[in-house]
Amino acid sequence: MRMYDIIDKKKRGSELSTEEITYLVDGYVKGEIPDYQMSAFLMAVYYKEMVKKELSVFTDRMAKSGDMVDLSAIDGIKVDKHSTGGVGDKTTLVVAPLVAACGGKVAKMSGRGLGFTGGTIDKLESIPGMQTSISEQKFFDIVNKIGVSVIGQSADIAPADKKLYALRDVTATVDSIPLIAASIMSKKLASGSDKILLDVTVGSGAFMKNLEDAQKLAKSMVEIGENAGRKTVAILTNMDVPLGEAVGNNIEVVEAIETLKGNGPKDFEKICLEFASYMLYLGEIADLENARQMVKEAIKSGKGLEKLAAMVKAQGGDESYIYHPEKFTEAQYCRDFIMSEDGYIVKMDTEKCGKTAVILGAGRETKESMIDPRAGIKIYHKTGEYVKKGEVLATLYASDENKLFEAMRYIEGVYSFGTQKVDPQEEILAYYP
Amino acid sequence: MRMYDIIDKKKRGSELSTEEITYLVDGYVKGEIPDYQMSAFLMAVYYKEMVKKELSVFTDRMAKSGDMVDLSAIDGIKVDKHSTGGVGDKTTLVVAPLVAACGGKVAKMSGRGLGFTGGTIDKLESIPGMQTSISEQKFFDIVNKIGVSVIGQSADIAPADKKLYALRDVTATVDSIPLIAASIMSKKLASGSDKILLDVTVGSGAFMKNLEDAQKLAKSMVEIGENAGRKTVAILTNMDVPLGEAVGNNIEVVEAIETLKGNGPKDFEKICLEFASYMLYLGEIADLENARQMVKEAIKSGKGLEKLAAMVKAQGGDESYIYHPEKFTEAQYCRDFIMSEDGYIVKMDTEKCGKTAVILGAGRETKESMIDPRAGIKIYHKTGEYVKKGEVLATLYASDENKLFEAMRYIEGVYSFGTQKVDPQEEILAYYP
Repeated sequence: MRMYDIIDKKKRGSELSTEEITYLVDGYVKGEIPDYQMSAFLMAVYYKEMVKKELSVFTDRMAKSGDMVDLSAIDGIKVDKHSTGGVGDKTTLVVAPLVAACGGKVAKMSGRGLGFTGGTIDKLESIPGMQTSISEQKFFDIVNKIGVSVIGQSADIAPADKKLYALRDVTATVDSIPLIAASIMSKKLASGSDKILLDVTVGSGAFMKNLEDAQKLAKSMVEIGENAGRKTVAILTNMDVPLGEAVGNNIEVVEAIETLKGNGPKDFEKICLEFASYMLYLGEIADLENARQMVKEAIKSGKGLEKLAAMVKAQGGDESYIYHPEKFTEAQYCRDFIMSEDGYIVKMDTEKCGKTAVILGAGRETKESMIDPRAGIKIYHKTGEYVKKGEVLATLYASDENKLFEAMRYIEGVYSFGTQKVDPQEEILAYYP
Repeated sequence: MRMYDIIDKKKRGSELSTEEITYLVDGYVKGEIPDYQMSAFLMAVYYKEMVKKELSVFTDRMAKSGDMVDLSAIDGIKVDKHSTGGVGDKTTLVVAPLVAACGGKVAKMSGRGLGFTGGTIDKLESIPGMQTSISEQKFFDIVNKIGVSVIGQSADIAPADKKLYALRDVTATVDSIPLIAASIMSKKLASGSDKILLDVTVGSGAFMKNLEDAQKLAKSMVEIGENAGRKTVAILTNMDVPLGEAVGNNIEVVEAIETLKGNGPKDFEKICLEFASYMLYLGEIADLENARQMVKEAIKSGKGLEKLAAMVKAQGGDESYIYHPEKFTEAQYCRDFIMSEDGYIVKMDTEKCGKTAVILGAGRETKESMIDPRAGIKIYHKTGEYVKKGEVLATLYASDENKLFEAMRYIEGVYSFGTQKVDPQEEILAYYP
């Protein structure tokens, strides 16, 4: 078998055999196939894609390139949740404790933020003392004891994906739907959960800018999951506006806490309730109707908040911050972004909103960047709302005054205003299947 | 400027600017742009191609990546000829001396054979003593004195093409028409001739398998030539059958000598006369009608043959072989391929015919292979001919009996027979412009 022939075959749009895909992935991980052949192959995939069977085999080989986490030491059905990335997305902080409060098991590995999207691990680490890198045994023990633990991804999950992603990142082959699907699903399959709930974000603050692409991605990922024997459901959510009000780290943790107390922004609460319900349904704890009731009850009773506090404590964090979020100190500098004349918000560039947060220090421009846990943005008005001159649209927080000024200029590009009423955005756009 | 953005732009099918192409080619030659980015770019070009202006700039930068040969020390208009490759193609050995005999100037750099196509330099070197690697000054002197010299390509012609070709060769990006056009024309532009005649071969023994692709390639190359201020004409010739009767080295030299004496195969002679006439026309020696008369006269008078002998002598070769081709000794082993029942030859796989010659030892499988000057095939019947059972279709020559047996099995795949009459092949298919 020769890599040349595999490139040529894909270039012509033919379906690769299981043997060819195995040769390709294994050979690349071993360093037997050079980067320059793999990048030509990836570009051919950008144009010619992969059919269902090819993509399943490709993803399977990527998953098996490293550790396959065995969660069998944890009782019950383990349900994972994964978002394709967004701005202001702190759902895991709410959904995982809610599911645990209702009897589900969440043994979750999360990522860090990069570029305009934030990451759950960064948000958790903004809680003093919180450990996200713990031993496997401790991870299992916590999930068995309290039902939920969220940790950083281990170094040995899908090394093929790490190597391929690094290459895609410098060869303009990131935005290929089959390659995105394989990248995400390889990590999910290796992470060991029995069922998978996918949050496929769509819009100006997501990687999928339109519904059609998002549906294609959802279909690909669900098919990969099903072919691997892991029941997978995708919910397509709107990222044409940021999720909730807070974009940052401390302020997102505070918003998650408020949501678990029933005081969260309505758009964010709606998505959290739906995700938690689906995870309980996938985990065979309840049917969807009952699950929705149980989740609402877990908020009302405060049991969801208790689970978050218990998880933080178990992972070495200071749980008093969960019960007294006022302990999170505010950033040194803050500034309001003010409406300059009456009008409707007709559109938001949510990616730009995420980039504003990065400028403020809340995110990473490169993998080496340091996170400022107190930096971020609070957004009070979104698309569809009528705002009067002089009202505050958003407040920006930073520990560095120069960054604050730079971000103040940048945030202007986030909003488009008009005099014609537009409808507010729907939170949930579609389900697959 | 970033290579990432250039790949992304081409991937989306946009036209690159002169600055971007300059950055791309220069950066790659200097080693600043890695192979893995270039191969992704080349694959994007395979799908999205390049428009006229982009391709001209790309080719120009490739040409200027090394020496730009200055032929101004040679008087008159220098006309180059280039073939896109074929089987049995010994035209240069006939055409170059004919043009010189009619007063034209041919200062030509030729290549070696690789894969199923032969190379003029290998054929010339099969003449005892013949030097194809001589000093520039000697090269100029010979052309000034006798009107013709054919030498090997210097090491410093278009190094960007060498580096790019080596990468294309391992990433399945050879068969891209714009990349083929740029590769050929970069070398032609750097080789310094004022005018260029292109022989674009079409058919089973050529890289372009159909007329449509060949026309596209011809158009691209002529446009590049014109944009560079070098008048360029392309003649599309038929390579669905081998050219002439001989495929090899010594035997092709003998066939060229016979053709210069007026005793060559008619198909081959026709192409030689047309090419020589066009070169005289491009060199402003005569209009086409007069040129055709002059060329015929140069055969009749023996002046063409004299020029070949003079060139061989000037380059250190034994000119007695030109006047006494019987001095070329035959290969140790030979065997006839016999018609097994009456019928028409309805099709020939000419690439396979070239590969048979390689098996016999006449060509190179890799750049390091040694050439056997006496190995080869003589082909007595071609597509459209009716051949009776027992007649000899071809004779195979080799210095190694095992190779001969292997080639005898292989040559069976060259011919398709039938009972329905088919037309013989036209030699010349089209002209561009």
